[in-house]
Amino acid sequence: MSKILITGGGGFIGSRLAKTLLARGKLEGKTIERLVLADQVAPRPELTADPRVEARVGPLLDQCAALGKEGFDGVFHLASAVSGECEADFDLGLRSNLDTTRALLDALRAATVAGGKPPKLVFSSSVAVFGPDPSKPLPDLVADDTLPAPKTSYGTHKLMCEYLIADYSRKGFVDGRSARLMTVTVRPGRPNGAASSFFSGIIREPLAGEEAICPVSPQVSHPLTSVARTVEGLIAVYEASVEQFGGRLAINLPAVNATVGQMLDALEEVAGKEVRARVRFQRDETVAGIVANWSRGCTAERAGRLGLKADADFATIIRQYIADCREAGATSALKGLAS
Amino acid sequence: MSKILITGGGGFIGSRLAKTLLARGKLEGKTIERLVLADQVAPRPELTADPRVEARVGPLLDQCAALGKEGFDGVFHLASAVSGECEADFDLGLRSNLDTTRALLDALRAATVAGGKPPKLVFSSSVAVFGPDPSKPLPDLVADDTLPAPKTSYGTHKLMCEYLIADYSRKGFVDGRSARLMTVTVRPGRPNGAASSFFSGIIREPLAGEEAICPVSPQVSHPLTSVARTVEGLIAVYEASVEQFGGRLAINLPAVNATVGQMLDALEEVAGKEVRARVRFQRDETVAGIVANWSRGCTAERAGRLGLKADADFATIIRQYIADCREAGATSALKGLAS
Repeated sequence: MSKILITGGGGFIGSRLAKTLLARGKLEGKTIERLVLADQVAPRPELTADPRVEARVGPLLDQCAALGKEGFDGVFHLASAVSGECEADFDLGLRSNLDTTRALLDALRAATVAGGKPPKLVFSSSVAVFGPDPSKPLPDLVADDTLPAPKTSYGTHKLMCEYLIADYSRKGFVDGRSARLMTVTVRPGRPNGAASSFFSGIIREPLAGEEAICPVSPQVSHPLTSVARTVEGLIAVYEASVEQFGGRLAINLPAVNATVGQMLDALEEVAGKEVRARVRFQRDETVAGIVANWSRGCTAERAGRLGLKADADFATIIRQYIADCREAGATSALKGLAS
Repeated sequence: MSKILITGGGGFIGSRLAKTLLARGKLEGKTIERLVLADQVAPRPELTADPRVEARVGPLLDQCAALGKEGFDGVFHLASAVSGECEADFDLGLRSNLDTTRALLDALRAATVAGGKPPKLVFSSSVAVFGPDPSKPLPDLVADDTLPAPKTSYGTHKLMCEYLIADYSRKGFVDGRSARLMTVTVRPGRPNGAASSFFSGIIREPLAGEEAICPVSPQVSHPLTSVARTVEGLIAVYEASVEQFGGRLAINLPAVNATVGQMLDALEEVAGKEVRARVRFQRDETVAGIVANWSRGCTAERAGRLGLKADADFATIIRQYIADCREAGATSALKGLAS
């Protein structure tokens, strides 16, 4: 029997992780007795309808101390302000991404020091820890052991938290590990504050019959992944033994490395020329500037050793999104598709 | 005219830096009008006797907000809890090395946002950011671009601060850079809480006519430096333009890479067999365990491009220590030397 916490459990990835965990019923072979979803927003009703689920709604920073006392066996720490928000509001980024992680770690540490078993902790880090550095240019594909040089506050805080978690783990306060998430595409719903938001928008809006604006050139390359592979990665990183990480607790999750042009080719392959034609290029210097500081692609050798694989290609990611929309009955999301 | 702050200005390196700056009278060609020394302990009387010097005595964390309002042109941030203290008291390490740096950065940021020129900031990081990692073993000599994997809380906090300072600099709040200090030897006075304390003790105590215990084997190799070269490095890092760092703001300072055996050979060369014979080997598992997680030596290519050089050899470092003791009239420190 185990009791699991998901911070950011009201968000897109957190909701999908919760759904997957509830369907599996087990983590590391132990039955999930309770699943607590903490977020600023209430979790989805279909999740809270499950008797195993409890919601903790409110700012996470204020909740950490109380959460620590609940005696979780495992924690998925996904809550985060996104990259665009952190660039726009420096204090918000520090508070949401650095202070909150520290408060959560200290709450879990207090429970361990009081006699509890160190909880497993999976931290959602990001490919944004990597950035270009004139003194040591990024390789074309960043690897697990590429020297991080973040060029955003978001990436800086994620990297700092990776190191903080490694130290709390070294001291035995938690059994932590960090999964560097690739850019999850196609996100449903509306654009968010992430600079990477358009990577979903240029697929999602045309499929819904709407025009989309692409703020960067077709040559921009980026590591992409589906939400299903991301959730699979988070669970595999949770279930791995600390020995499987071989000393370094942060790993890249697998990605499909594709250019914007290749993404649109895949869109045309899956949905036709007419759908692709709804994408218009109009450069946004702010977004293009942030994206220019990201890696063009990733490798994930150590995730591969955990048995994790990237999606087959970007067309597969689009097809999965379409299938997810159909399963959810979200017909308006697909009204741009020829029937 | 410029106004300079040294945090840790009551400590060994801070005092020496203050003395050197007062003797130079200038930084970046600008006359030093005021030199503020902030520390938990009062600065040395010979420093406060100088009309340019002011002391701010008390815990730095409590002083940061007020210091920020003083409008410094430049800051040397040296204040720090040492490695052994941080391993023994986890909260002390976080507070002294992470929270205090953050509070100082936020105070400087507030002054910049209020219309001030972003102050230059030199942060004393450490070779302790490097540690062994089974997934990517340390090279025999760690370089500027070696992937850090600290295996102490001290090294973790130093590394986190490097990244934090890089982000505050990227945003234009400070003009920051981090100098990774090598192990400064020979420190005068008594052993301190640093696990590296014995690197001074095995030279200092025999020269004073006392027995010294070496807690690690003669084969242990380590990057060493004199206080004079360290102060020279801090000033050069201050005076360099941000462009000279080529994008990555943390650099290794130069070191003499020597084994404990070579250090004792140098002691014999400088002071004779009888002095060397005062060192006794008695393994201390705690110290040996921490030291085993440090690098065996360093390179400092980028510091070299700033014109910085290591001491010629370890015997030179010992001779400098002896000369410093003589200059200070510290005859008891040399009473083990044949006259």
